Amino acid sequence: MGEAVREPRQDRSRATRGRLLAAAVDCLAEVGWTGSTVSVVAERAGVSRGAAQHHFPTREDLFTAAIAYVTDERVEFLRAALPTLPPGPDRTRFVVDAIGEMYAGKLFKAALQLWVAAASDEQLRVQVLPLEARVGREAHQLTVEALGADESHPGVREAVQATLDLARGLGLANLLTDDTKRRHRVLAEWTTALSAKLATLA
Amino acid sequence: MGEAVREPRQDRSRATRGRLLAAAVDCLAEVGWTGSTVSVVAERAGVSRGAAQHHFPTREDLFTAAIAYVTDERVEFLRAALPTLPPGPDRTRFVVDAIGEMYAGKLFKAALQLWVAAASDEQLRVQVLPLEARVGREAHQLTVEALGADESHPGVREAVQATLDLARGLGLANLLTDDTKRRHRVLAEWTTALSAKLATLA
Repeated sequence: MGEAVREPRQDRSRATRGRLLAAAVDCLAEVGWTGSTVSVVAERAGVSRGAAQHHFPTREDLFTAAIAYVTDERVEFLRAALPTLPPGPDRTRFVVDAIGEMYAGKLFKAALQLWVAAASDEQLRVQVLPLEARVGREAHQLTVEALGADESHPGVREAVQATLDLARGLGLANLLTDDTKRRHRVLAEWTTALSAKLATLA
Repeated sequence: MGEAVREPRQDRSRATRGRLLAAAVDCLAEVGWTGSTVSVVAERAGVSRGAAQHHFPTREDLFTAAIAYVTDERVEFLRAALPTLPPGPDRTRFVVDAIGEMYAGKLFKAALQLWVAAASDEQLRVQVLPLEARVGREAHQLTVEALGADESHPGVREAVQATLDLARGLGLANLLTDDTKRRHRVLAEWTTALSAKLATLA
């Protein structure tokens, strides 16, 4: 077969894969790990079960790939938006708010289901560990860039990490109820402390 | 039957209940929500299944009661230790470290399993919501007392909440790997910010 035929097939395959991955994140966030199977995701994505299993032989493969894929998409999108960030003191507030919203959303809810399932499932844990490390690294690197933080100064690396750990804790508090108002107040207080930290070093 | 007979029976019943609740927290933390049933907990506690079901008719009853019971025990223990806290600037460091350790431990891992299961189980969610509110309130009140924080000052309430949200985020980061070293560094940085906040208002 020539290029003209092969190319569209690869595109179709890539599109199918992307639909499955996006549906897998939706599924995890909505029905949790126990109810999330390759079949359920295939149906949600409008893909045959056979095609889904061709792309992802196991449930663990599908859901870890889904969190990785949607995280990469999100990081790429946010990195592209970095040049549009406001300058000056508004920047820290803007970045902290954006991080808070990210961990209050669907991707975090889905990842939380996977992490917590992995705590008592050794097979899943083996696949989630490198994913957790990668997602954590990407979130940290993006936050450093967004804040324009210089990690060579003492305490700056820890302050950036605290921002992300705080956002994850707030994400957890937003799991069962809408915690938006309280989250904004807590993040406003943290922004003051973080701005002071970054300013003394500028 | 006279008092002399009834009293020991009530004590036995109370002891059985306590054993079931402690075993339920261990079970949740170790095997997760899916593998945690009344039967599994009864066996672990050395109690007959019938006796367990007499105390806790449903799985939801048993595990929400278990988190409530162990939280109350912990809060009571920590409140009793308040008079032994060091005075002066060491106090904030001590309290922040203690909170960090609490959310790195078994009770938080168990509660996390229950909260995350409740996100996609409406029946469980109805029972977890008031429990989450109560546990959050108790943790907040105890932290205010431990820090000797005056919440009438602007931002102090939010700084106390941020301490707990940060500790929950760090607890999450400690779920699949031992994150102790990084947690200590992040909490040390947070202690500096929190001490500054509390000191400007003293």
